[in-house]
Amino acid sequence: MPHGFRYRRRVQFAETDMAGIVHFSSMFKYMEEAEHALWRAAGMTIARAGAPIAWPRLAAAFEFQRPLFFEDEFDVTVEISAITSRTIQYAFTIARDETTIGTGTMTTACVKKGDDAVMKAVELPADIVARLSGVVDRKDA
Amino acid sequence: MPHGFRYRRRVQFAETDMAGIVHFSSMFKYMEEAEHALWRAAGMTIARAGAPIAWPRLAAAFEFQRPLFFEDEFDVTVEISAITSRTIQYAFTIARDETTIGTGTMTTACVKKGDDAVMKAVELPADIVARLSGVVDRKDA
Amino acid sequence: MPHGFRYRRRVQFAETDMAGIVHFSSMFKYMEEAEHALWRAAGMTIARAGAPIAWPRLAAAFEFQRPLFFEDEFDVTVEISAITSRTIQYAFTIARDETTIGTGTMTTACVKKGDDAVMKAVELPADIVARLSGVVDRKDA
Amino acid sequence: MPHGFRYRRRVQFAETDMAGIVHFSSMFKYMEEAEHALWRAAGMTIARAGAPIAWPRLAAAFEFQRPLFFEDEFDVTVEISAITSRTIQYAFTIARDETTIGTGTMTTACVKKGDDAVMKAVELPADIVARLSGVVDRKDA
Repeated sequence: MPHGFRYRRRVQFAETDMAGIVHFSSMFKYMEEAEHALWRAAGMTIARAGAPIAWPRLAAAFEFQRPLFFEDEFDVTVEISAITSRTIQYAFTIARDETTIGTGTMTTACVKKGDDAVMKAVELPADIVARLSGVVDRKDA
Repeated sequence: MPHGFRYRRRVQFAETDMAGIVHFSSMFKYMEEAEHALWRAAGMTIARAGAPIAWPRLAAAFEFQRPLFFEDEFDVTVEISAITSRTIQYAFTIARDETTIGTGTMTTACVKKGDDAVMKAVELPADIVARLSGVVDRKDA
Repeated sequence: MPHGFRYRRRVQFAETDMAGIVHFSSMFKYMEEAEHALWRAAGMTIARAGAPIAWPRLAAAFEFQRPLFFEDEFDVTVEISAITSRTIQYAFTIARDETTIGTGTMTTACVKKGDDAVMKAVELPADIVARLSGVVDRKDA
Repeated sequence: MPHGFRYRRRVQFAETDMAGIVHFSSMFKYMEEAEHALWRAAGMTIARAGAPIAWPRLAAAFEFQRPLFFEDEFDVTVEISAITSRTIQYAFTIARDETTIGTGTMTTACVKKGDDAVMKAVELPADIVARLSGVVDRKDA
């Protein structure tokens, strides 16, 4: 069982494609859902109407080992794999029971939204990092 | 050939499902794309960051006659089927060449966005109605 | 509380749009997810690779009363509202606590898949109807 | 202007999220659409009902430089960046006029579909590689 925060999900019909398996782009949605569940587990929400800061992606990647099928139940395990003053990188493992479906990463910047829709990178709020780390480092997570 | 404004599109792989056909929810996206293309043909955009008014749905419906398949090219024809002081109802036909795939409707309200995210119905701006009607009533549309 | 089978869900970020609310097409995915959860509650799956019958849509409709927002938890309640020899119509209510978000219907045909991808309407298997009815009519559903 | 095969697209409303920009997962759909347009330009289709071979993903990655907005028109340029006996790696650039939105890669295996839904890697058909290369290497592509 991989270490980290675990998010459980079931494959929905609309996420499959004519090849009979989950469309590859859905893995990126599953990773994001796990990230947001981690924020909720840390007592926070990643997005609020009118919030002064936002968390756009800098990079996202996934390596596919085996397909997922309709109605499969699976776990997305998320860890914080790297932190800089302005970015968080998460690492993910998607697994159906003992079978690894694939692994991925997402790097997110912290930005301040200006009046002109321009986003300016800012330093990560220290309390947010502390709260997220608190959840993923929990023994029972 | 149905009367109205015509929007041409091709089915993408991610829009199919494990039944080998286009997922039924995609028809609602296709109708919306045609609506927005109609607005562009009328020299307008339906959504701008910070715009004071918005156009949420009141109702949407579709009747499916035949399936669409991967890479099919199809046309969405849109007409204005009803107008009240505060709503526009569009009627749509989706067809692949001479084959009707299905027909649908969408009813949209004009609302003013308040500071508190509350939406309040307001009267349709007359110039918007005139511009849209101008496009769908054109002989060559 | 509406009568019927209840499916609980949370709004995901990717389901929102630039208007700050859940995109209207997501309601159709939510209705389908509830339908498939009903089938599972009845001990069945609506789709299997190589299955001889399938359940395409004949019609789908939704009336929107209030918006749903990111991370809202909501319930989709599903009932069987009409049955003919070859079709099932489901009725849905989507609600966030006591607030009705909207109501909808979906009509599904039972078809046999031929070798040539042609779908031919067939009679509903009696045991499937009995199983589904058993779940939605349960007092504690 | 990047070298390679070019696919033009416009951002649709349903592809935006509550941050007011295109949802990051859409970039993976845009890359796939360009890949399939390349296959069509080479006189082929990547997926047919009942086809003996399929092209699942081994890896997909994207680096985000700037956001895309509703109704933006953009180009996805695709090249073949690596070929092994059993895999094709494509490299993509997404740009709005002279502004690079981001760059990505996708690696695809060629597999034979067995009766039991098991996929077995096989050698790339030589004629498929030749046809794709012919399109991306064209001077006027």
